[in-house]
Amino acid sequence: MKKPAWVIDKERARRDDARETVWLFGLHAVRDALMNPARERLRLLVTKNAADKLAEAIAASGMTPEMQDPRKFEAPIDPESVHQGAALEVRPLDWGRPEDVAAGGAGRALVVLLDRVTDPHNVGAVLRSAEVFGARAVIAPRHHSAPETGALAKTASGALERQPYLRVTNLAETMIALKGMGYLLLGLDGQAPLTLAQGVAQADGRPIGLVLGSEGPGLREKTRETCDALVRIPHAGDFGSLNVSNAAAVALYEVSRG
Amino acid sequence: MKKPAWVIDKERARRDDARETVWLFGLHAVRDALMNPARERLRLLVTKNAADKLAEAIAASGMTPEMQDPRKFEAPIDPESVHQGAALEVRPLDWGRPEDVAAGGAGRALVVLLDRVTDPHNVGAVLRSAEVFGARAVIAPRHHSAPETGALAKTASGALERQPYLRVTNLAETMIALKGMGYLLLGLDGQAPLTLAQGVAQADGRPIGLVLGSEGPGLREKTRETCDALVRIPHAGDFGSLNVSNAAAVALYEVSRG
Repeated sequence: MKKPAWVIDKERARRDDARETVWLFGLHAVRDALMNPARERLRLLVTKNAADKLAEAIAASGMTPEMQDPRKFEAPIDPESVHQGAALEVRPLDWGRPEDVAAGGAGRALVVLLDRVTDPHNVGAVLRSAEVFGARAVIAPRHHSAPETGALAKTASGALERQPYLRVTNLAETMIALKGMGYLLLGLDGQAPLTLAQGVAQADGRPIGLVLGSEGPGLREKTRETCDALVRIPHAGDFGSLNVSNAAAVALYEVSRG
Repeated sequence: MKKPAWVIDKERARRDDARETVWLFGLHAVRDALMNPARERLRLLVTKNAADKLAEAIAASGMTPEMQDPRKFEAPIDPESVHQGAALEVRPLDWGRPEDVAAGGAGRALVVLLDRVTDPHNVGAVLRSAEVFGARAVIAPRHHSAPETGALAKTASGALERQPYLRVTNLAETMIALKGMGYLLLGLDGQAPLTLAQGVAQADGRPIGLVLGSEGPGLREKTRETCDALVRIPHAGDFGSLNVSNAAAVALYEVSRG
């Protein structure tokens, strides 16, 4: 019997995912990935100088580095990248199902959902804040979100290795699943009548999902409708807006301060 | 009588400052600078397409744009810059003396002091947050701080035109002047015993200066000593740290929430 087209598509997507690799670069990002036992590593390119600085991490990883001439560093990364003489080819981390990650873990049940935030620097900064404030996961749609890249890893400053970053096929479906688990979903929206502090107080200790859209378009209609409430970060004036990673940090702080 | 060397140096620095110009780029940054009556403008380079989009702002500014071929856009900016067909040469804004800016204005007396934050993207994001939370000024040392550049203006997303950003010769001296005006200076430090919320509560309505250092080195010794108190943003875990602009946003939020 011939397989239906959608099955073939799904199988191909899975094979593509398994083949996908990412080049991390920079001493900090490479060191943290070398020290992470969950990280599948393929190739390590380093200059003599970087190898000395990373000696402990390289030994821990058991990898054999490929030595590079600092004048012609040949990793397939953007030539503008500040690689500091170190590049590591890895597979994206597999954090499992978002529902499982959101259900487990210590501390307050708290997740961040990013609706189409495409800038890797913003997502990297959100991962750092999520880790600091103890969020269990940062969840984003598979399409139109910053993928796990070297630039994201560098901005995340190590947090990519430790802070679950999950990309899902359908964000609204994941939101509904989280609501079924008792999560209260608060969408950030500058025009909302409720303040962030009021929204968090309403949760009264329940698990919280903070939902943020990209700058400009904000939350998509479907995402907005699936939130339990919309909340705003109060502004002092009529002008300006927060960068999305700064809005996420403020919202995470408000929840963890409570 | 011959002038002493320090007088000659000071006069030269003043002449250099007066000659200094900055190229802003990108539709948003250029539009906001064209609309700002306080902004001294020199040359405007635009493609036909950008000129159409900026028509209203160009008319308001009274400038005559120099039309550019989109295939060879000849503004003296980094070739990697996302200029969107618009570049504007301006002089840095003169906000006056920090003490005057910190003394005046509506809303709660609140300023941000940045000790050697050199990344223009971080400073740009801090300017956005400072505007949103109503800070009167962002103050930084003249040396080893991000200068007013196109990259900073672009990240600031318009806030550079509205939010005072002052660079001073000696940060500690400015801090002492602020203390003389009744400001309580809270330095952010991950190891401080006092929390941010406790520090802000101690201010009890007095003017507040939030002092942040660069990532890694943190506050310089002299800066740290000149603060009234050190405060920390509580962490959920043992790992990670906030990006400096995210830490600034959280601190500004805590003050404005009170």
